[in-house]
Amino acid sequence: MMLFGGDYNPEQWIDDKNVLDEDIRRFHEMGINTVSVNIFSWSFLEPEEGRYDFSFLSSLLDRLYEEGISVNLATPSGARPKWLSDKYPEVLRVREDRTKMIFGERHNHCYTSPVYREKVRLIDEALSKEFGHHKAVIAWHISNEYGGECHCPLCQEAFHRWLEGRYDSISDLNRKWNNAFWSHIYDSFDSIDSPSSIGESKNPALSLEWKRFVTHQTVDFMNEEIKAVRKYSDLPVTTNMMYDYLGLDYQAFSDSLDFISWDNYPAWGTGFDGDDVLVAADNAMEHDYYRAMKDKPFILMESCPEATNWQPLSHLKRHGVMEAASLEAVAHGSDGVLFFQMRHGRGGYEKFHGALLDSSGCETRTIREARTLGNKLTALKDVIGTVNKPVAGIIRDTESRWAMEGSAGPRNKGLHYRDNLRRVYLGLRSSGLDADVIGPEHDFSAYRILVVPMLYMFRAGLAERLESFTADGGILVVTHWSGVVDEYDSIYPGKTPYGLSEVLGLRRAEIDALQDGAENVTIPVAGNGLGLRKNYTCSVLSEIPEVYSAEPILLYGNDFYKGLPVVTEHDYKKGRSYYIASMMEEDFYHDLFSSLIEKNGIEPIAKALPRGVFASERIGNGKRYIFLQNFSGNDVLLSSSLLNGKRIIGDGDILKPYDTFVFER
Amino acid sequence: MMLFGGDYNPEQWIDDKNVLDEDIRRFHEMGINTVSVNIFSWSFLEPEEGRYDFSFLSSLLDRLYEEGISVNLATPSGARPKWLSDKYPEVLRVREDRTKMIFGERHNHCYTSPVYREKVRLIDEALSKEFGHHKAVIAWHISNEYGGECHCPLCQEAFHRWLEGRYDSISDLNRKWNNAFWSHIYDSFDSIDSPSSIGESKNPALSLEWKRFVTHQTVDFMNEEIKAVRKYSDLPVTTNMMYDYLGLDYQAFSDSLDFISWDNYPAWGTGFDGDDVLVAADNAMEHDYYRAMKDKPFILMESCPEATNWQPLSHLKRHGVMEAASLEAVAHGSDGVLFFQMRHGRGGYEKFHGALLDSSGCETRTIREARTLGNKLTALKDVIGTVNKPVAGIIRDTESRWAMEGSAGPRNKGLHYRDNLRRVYLGLRSSGLDADVIGPEHDFSAYRILVVPMLYMFRAGLAERLESFTADGGILVVTHWSGVVDEYDSIYPGKTPYGLSEVLGLRRAEIDALQDGAENVTIPVAGNGLGLRKNYTCSVLSEIPEVYSAEPILLYGNDFYKGLPVVTEHDYKKGRSYYIASMMEEDFYHDLFSSLIEKNGIEPIAKALPRGVFASERIGNGKRYIFLQNFSGNDVLLSSSLLNGKRIIGDGDILKPYDTFVFER
Amino acid sequence: MMLFGGDYNPEQWIDDKNVLDEDIRRFHEMGINTVSVNIFSWSFLEPEEGRYDFSFLSSLLDRLYEEGISVNLATPSGARPKWLSDKYPEVLRVREDRTKMIFGERHNHCYTSPVYREKVRLIDEALSKEFGHHKAVIAWHISNEYGGECHCPLCQEAFHRWLEGRYDSISDLNRKWNNAFWSHIYDSFDSIDSPSSIGESKNPALSLEWKRFVTHQTVDFMNEEIKAVRKYSDLPVTTNMMYDYLGLDYQAFSDSLDFISWDNYPAWGTGFDGDDVLVAADNAMEHDYYRAMKDKPFILMESCPEATNWQPLSHLKRHGVMEAASLEAVAHGSDGVLFFQMRHGRGGYEKFHGALLDSSGCETRTIREARTLGNKLTALKDVIGTVNKPVAGIIRDTESRWAMEGSAGPRNKGLHYRDNLRRVYLGLRSSGLDADVIGPEHDFSAYRILVVPMLYMFRAGLAERLESFTADGGILVVTHWSGVVDEYDSIYPGKTPYGLSEVLGLRRAEIDALQDGAENVTIPVAGNGLGLRKNYTCSVLSEIPEVYSAEPILLYGNDFYKGLPVVTEHDYKKGRSYYIASMMEEDFYHDLFSSLIEKNGIEPIAKALPRGVFASERIGNGKRYIFLQNFSGNDVLLSSSLLNGKRIIGDGDILKPYDTFVFER
Repeated sequence: MMLFGGDYNPEQWIDDKNVLDEDIRRFHEMGINTVSVNIFSWSFLEPEEGRYDFSFLSSLLDRLYEEGISVNLATPSGARPKWLSDKYPEVLRVREDRTKMIFGERHNHCYTSPVYREKVRLIDEALSKEFGHHKAVIAWHISNEYGGECHCPLCQEAFHRWLEGRYDSISDLNRKWNNAFWSHIYDSFDSIDSPSSIGESKNPALSLEWKRFVTHQTVDFMNEEIKAVRKYSDLPVTTNMMYDYLGLDYQAFSDSLDFISWDNYPAWGTGFDGDDVLVAADNAMEHDYYRAMKDKPFILMESCPEATNWQPLSHLKRHGVMEAASLEAVAHGSDGVLFFQMRHGRGGYEKFHGALLDSSGCETRTIREARTLGNKLTALKDVIGTVNKPVAGIIRDTESRWAMEGSAGPRNKGLHYRDNLRRVYLGLRSSGLDADVIGPEHDFSAYRILVVPMLYMFRAGLAERLESFTADGGILVVTHWSGVVDEYDSIYPGKTPYGLSEVLGLRRAEIDALQDGAENVTIPVAGNGLGLRKNYTCSVLSEIPEVYSAEPILLYGNDFYKGLPVVTEHDYKKGRSYYIASMMEEDFYHDLFSSLIEKNGIEPIAKALPRGVFASERIGNGKRYIFLQNFSGNDVLLSSSLLNGKRIIGDGDILKPYDTFVFER
Repeated sequence: MMLFGGDYNPEQWIDDKNVLDEDIRRFHEMGINTVSVNIFSWSFLEPEEGRYDFSFLSSLLDRLYEEGISVNLATPSGARPKWLSDKYPEVLRVREDRTKMIFGERHNHCYTSPVYREKVRLIDEALSKEFGHHKAVIAWHISNEYGGECHCPLCQEAFHRWLEGRYDSISDLNRKWNNAFWSHIYDSFDSIDSPSSIGESKNPALSLEWKRFVTHQTVDFMNEEIKAVRKYSDLPVTTNMMYDYLGLDYQAFSDSLDFISWDNYPAWGTGFDGDDVLVAADNAMEHDYYRAMKDKPFILMESCPEATNWQPLSHLKRHGVMEAASLEAVAHGSDGVLFFQMRHGRGGYEKFHGALLDSSGCETRTIREARTLGNKLTALKDVIGTVNKPVAGIIRDTESRWAMEGSAGPRNKGLHYRDNLRRVYLGLRSSGLDADVIGPEHDFSAYRILVVPMLYMFRAGLAERLESFTADGGILVVTHWSGVVDEYDSIYPGKTPYGLSEVLGLRRAEIDALQDGAENVTIPVAGNGLGLRKNYTCSVLSEIPEVYSAEPILLYGNDFYKGLPVVTEHDYKKGRSYYIASMMEEDFYHDLFSSLIEKNGIEPIAKALPRGVFASERIGNGKRYIFLQNFSGNDVLLSSSLLNGKRIIGDGDILKPYDTFVFER
Repeated sequence: MMLFGGDYNPEQWIDDKNVLDEDIRRFHEMGINTVSVNIFSWSFLEPEEGRYDFSFLSSLLDRLYEEGISVNLATPSGARPKWLSDKYPEVLRVREDRTKMIFGERHNHCYTSPVYREKVRLIDEALSKEFGHHKAVIAWHISNEYGGECHCPLCQEAFHRWLEGRYDSISDLNRKWNNAFWSHIYDSFDSIDSPSSIGESKNPALSLEWKRFVTHQTVDFMNEEIKAVRKYSDLPVTTNMMYDYLGLDYQAFSDSLDFISWDNYPAWGTGFDGDDVLVAADNAMEHDYYRAMKDKPFILMESCPEATNWQPLSHLKRHGVMEAASLEAVAHGSDGVLFFQMRHGRGGYEKFHGALLDSSGCETRTIREARTLGNKLTALKDVIGTVNKPVAGIIRDTESRWAMEGSAGPRNKGLHYRDNLRRVYLGLRSSGLDADVIGPEHDFSAYRILVVPMLYMFRAGLAERLESFTADGGILVVTHWSGVVDEYDSIYPGKTPYGLSEVLGLRRAEIDALQDGAENVTIPVAGNGLGLRKNYTCSVLSEIPEVYSAEPILLYGNDFYKGLPVVTEHDYKKGRSYYIASMMEEDFYHDLFSSLIEKNGIEPIAKALPRGVFASERIGNGKRYIFLQNFSGNDVLLSSSLLNGKRIIGDGDILKPYDTFVFER
């Protein structure tokens, strides 16, 4: 079955059994089949140190099982009981400014603390022993939204040892970090302080290594939790990741998990100046990132059926938006739709966060829409286990972004990285393709087109792999500000993009930063190899390439680099490369990829889609499932070729705003 | 007499008797009769611990008495001598981030510190003994602008004991605060930390109770000061409150004080995009809040005769503005006009703050305008002791606002509470009514119309009292986002506005937050009960009510809730209720209240006033005093019906900008 | 020779001799003759406490000497080795909020610390002994960009002793600081805490004295460094100052230095809304400030040949901008053009900072433009030692600005001091004059015109000197907000501008602050003494003068002070004075000074220059060198009178954008 349900925190009504009964009645009414429990339950599970009381959880799981509702069982490490930090202050974080925190909020424990690790291990093992084979439980939900960092002495010490393992010697570190600059030579690993606003905030290599360490330490903590639950249970494990969260490199989590899950809270109707086409593309890109981690279906672990309460505006979801967002996840590889939360909190910080059920006791629009969604998810059960298999890949690397956005220059007012990435992605999608959003270590062999947008850092080996991809017949698209530095954020000597000047037939010479709102214009070269004929605008950053053997496609139309190439094409061995030296307007990427598709005989999932109508394809069990979704805001009449196949969801030939059609072919 | 004068700090020229002589000469010239002294004099009164030197103050009071000038005598607790914190660091505050402050500024002592309380008690008693019967002194000015909070261990301990007195047990507290959320169960009262940005900042009940505690502790401190001065003196006591200050709930101060006083610093000409009609309405609303605390005349304790120095712009008051602002206070119940300050400081932070006298020694525009004002205040002496007696009340509750603005959602970019309140108020005033701005515990029986705008929190008993008011024939007007939570900020289960769905004939279903600048439009229902025919805009927040027996008056014109009611009317027993589900444009409130006045046979103070011309009425001693003021910026020809009565101030039938007419009837 | 080169930090490639060889090859190609080294080398010079290793520096200097390249040899105190703060934490700063810093960044040591002073002395002496007579070395570059402040106990103690030396007694201090205000009487010098956001931030006299102390202590530190290097060397000393840096009063540094140098990083193309005329004027004004410190040539110690990396945008320098900026420095008195930096960093915070050489190994636009510049600097060798001798002076005083901008009121949204100063300056320059930008203690006797723009503080004696200047026949121009306070930021009693009401024939009565974007308009008085006929706008601050004997030139056209004078003229003894009561638009200042030139028979350097074309004149050795530069963005055809003299640089009669012509006359 497609999982359908969400986070459920019934400890809030522990004294009132009527609420549970009422909730379960509503669950059945909506077709709910899965809930995630125990996320914030530690105070109830272990009211005093070492005294476990699992009675409430036990009866809850029994009841859910009776009612046919499955459970993702969480480890409770996301929020500590107060007694824990009262007795063991070491579990509290120290901020980067070296302020020791006091008790409060959640997700704020030291990941290094031996005490915290031990307390978590004990309760995780106890839960595993007690519930690791409970019939209601289908998966382990490890902790909740891991994040943040700690600068306590324990973490400093762990950082030192971690660094020591990565370098030949302290001299090796000094050299790789270029510590000669500003005379910042370290004598020993022990003398290195983590980055701080009251100390070192301007050593990019230190900042970068610290972020890597934070990821390492968090994964290590997670692995201890996984080990604890696996002591008595072999249920699959996951942890819920967060949208575009830059505190961790999630790629490093993937190997430890049985399946990927993530939490999605898009700002429908208000984000991106209210352009829901961009919201939809942005979400889809994130889904594709999580799917591509394992090239397998993932789970949408949290989403909001109504408005959130923590965004600037609690803008209501218009009719159909909840369904469209839910089915978009499925279209991109999710085998379920889970919400935060099943019922509004009674009080507390998230009491106004949207939920399937509110406290009014009345029938609501949300309940009605959830019922409909439940029926559609049931209709999609054969899609389970299938997966998208795109011919295009886009490289997105968290470490590179850390380094790029942590560097001073060339545009401290904003590099517009994600905007650029989204435009590239939208260009592929609006040309009728699915796309994988992959880390640079992902296998490239399945792709016809590989895009490298603003990949500032090339770690060792990447340039060679990009060269091979092209040499072997691939279409390589590289944009500005790529291949600038190595993994320690040191500039590559010689021509850049590093290792690709032969492949691209040019080198980067200068990079210009434009004011907010300023634009240049591009002029097509007559008879260019892509058949582009329009003028496009470009903005934000404009590189001036020194071109050797590349063919200009578009030229700058203004400024002192007027007439110099901004987009080029270059044949390289069996393949071909493209360089895009500036951030182009959205239309360009559509025209670029449409041209590449045609020129290279690639078959898109769907052709001639209006802006905001997206096609996705999940493949498996000998079937192809085509999803068509309309985020354009307008009714769209679909041509018969698009309506081909066995209809699973939808009817007629008009795809209305926020509607979804699914076909089996 | 109407008090006329202000704050006077002659310690700055203690070595130069000429300044005092010159000041007194000018006081007489302007008609000054009252000054507030001693506010920042502690260093002079007690230059060393325990050694009092009242000689300067004594000779000052003697001289003022000789000159016929009365004195509000301040207790000096607003600013400590440096020796006090040097010797007793406990008197220094600890900030919410647990930083211990060092010496500096003012109004920054721990209200809990036993040492500070003792030192204040001793000097207050000594002052009371020495000057409590001095002929110049007419009132005690207790401290100065109480405010701020302290998070030191002494305050933490006091907070624990205060909480302990309010709950049956720690379990009772955990339940009422919904601490099950995020697993934040407290073991004991002693384990509760005050809210902090380095600890708990997201427990709304904790934040709310902390604010209540701060008010409690400050009132307790004030009560000790009052007790000290009353040891030897029975002069009336007051303390000066501040405009829309949200650090304290001033309602809790009222019982301890003999009369209310407050400090008003409106931004004439620059506030509210330079619309002085809104500035005037905003001030008036604040005057009405302080008057309604005791339903008695209050004192405008501070105001500025020129420009302030601490606002973003020191925008000069245009001709007539100082007088208009001063007489507006009188129109709304003040029995005096006092300024900060009598003379510019020589140096220091407020040296450029406007004053009646500057250091030039020259005749100034301020002196000329003050002379005229002095004469008008003399003419108004019979008004003293009379008071406004409005037929309309508006509920404004600081605790509710704390909770509402402290909650996440539905609009973290701003709920526009005060803007909404001001529009309601302006609607009443522009319809020719005075209004009381009251706490929810105020008696409702005097009102024909009771408005409940955005009253998010209904404390126990309020819903029942609102029901009774309506049942007994009152006109109840409730707006969106009312009756949502109880006094611990927990959502009321069942239909909301809590306890009023029968009275209103509807319940709140959803609430939508609009982007800044976005608007919906409302469409009148044909033949609606209020005779409204215009389209209005609405913005910020739009509730979608589920209507049972209420009659729609206006409907939403756009968005997915187009056609659903935004304003409704409902007959309930002997009365009638109105629900306003969104923030409407200003005109709507005028039309609403004008219609209610006409429909219910209410007699306004004045009819058909142009925007920005306001009528107020003070009643007493068998007389009615009508004040007409013109903040519209234009000459206004008044009809003869408005010119009715014995003229006290003004002449002719044209009310010029910033002019005031007063009639006795 | 004109110095040509810049900062060079080859420790970054200490292991790779090829880089040095390659760099020197390029240096010769571009005509480089000077580099500054050793600025951030301490970790290499003293890898362990007390163990000096000068081998790299020694071989570097030898090599540079062999290659004919001179050296500014820096003392390395700008960045400490890590071992120093690890062993002696007292060298680390304490912030104003009393947070003790940890190791990181640079320019962050306590200037008071005896340990730091001793360690610096030892290494400076060792460097002086070793290299003080090295043939490559031409000057000592003392430390680097001194700045910042420290609030540690050692600094508090030094502050107390410094204060004690400035006042008769603590009572004297209390009186001068007006500490009676808010009862802030100090008992002793030892009880005074430096200003702090957790303590006293609102005592303007304290803040002002603290800033003076910081300057004093920094100069004292610098003097110890100078003493150390002079122990074995008599080479000239300088330190590099920063653009409009307000942390120090640089005037206090001048006496200790043999020549002045400074670092200039203008935002060409993006600053001042992209108006390069304003950028050029702003730079020029700063050059004139540094030149006037000693009335001698200075050195442009740092500038950027490409884009910086730390500004909001790394906007590329358009063709010709680097040359124009470099020659502008020379035109205003610099005897050299030095850059930061010679080669891009390999990594670290400034790796993307522009440099003459990048890491590509390729020929670049920068290299090509530097070659051309090198040739022009060679052509200008006779200009060395000559200096500008303006007939106009503008007073700019850092202490006054500290006090003015540290005060609350009259416009906390911004006084627009520097904008006002630049408009005055641009008025003089566009009228064809050079100008000195001088401290108030500078001799006035060389000037025909002396401008006093927004000189809020008049220290003792200044009013008398301004009076004498005018009485003796000078033209004195005073603007609003001048002569308000004494050196302790206490308001002068009586008429203001202090001491000038006879000279100006008026006094300041009121000052109005206008909203951002708001304007008044001025109307010329018919037949006014300056022959002004246009209407100008004015903004920001508008004073209302009370005029006695001055003649109105322009009147306010709007607001309640319509018809009152905004610009006046007054004959005073042999001279004449002008008062400008508001911030006028740019054109006014041009018209004002053009009229003054004509009326008083002053000969400008050039006449009738279009906006953005500037003329400067260096005089000496019996020669006059006229520089004409074009920042207007347009080709300008020069009249033959402007082309007079022997052509040193440039040809033809069209001055193209960013071009420079130099003539010897």
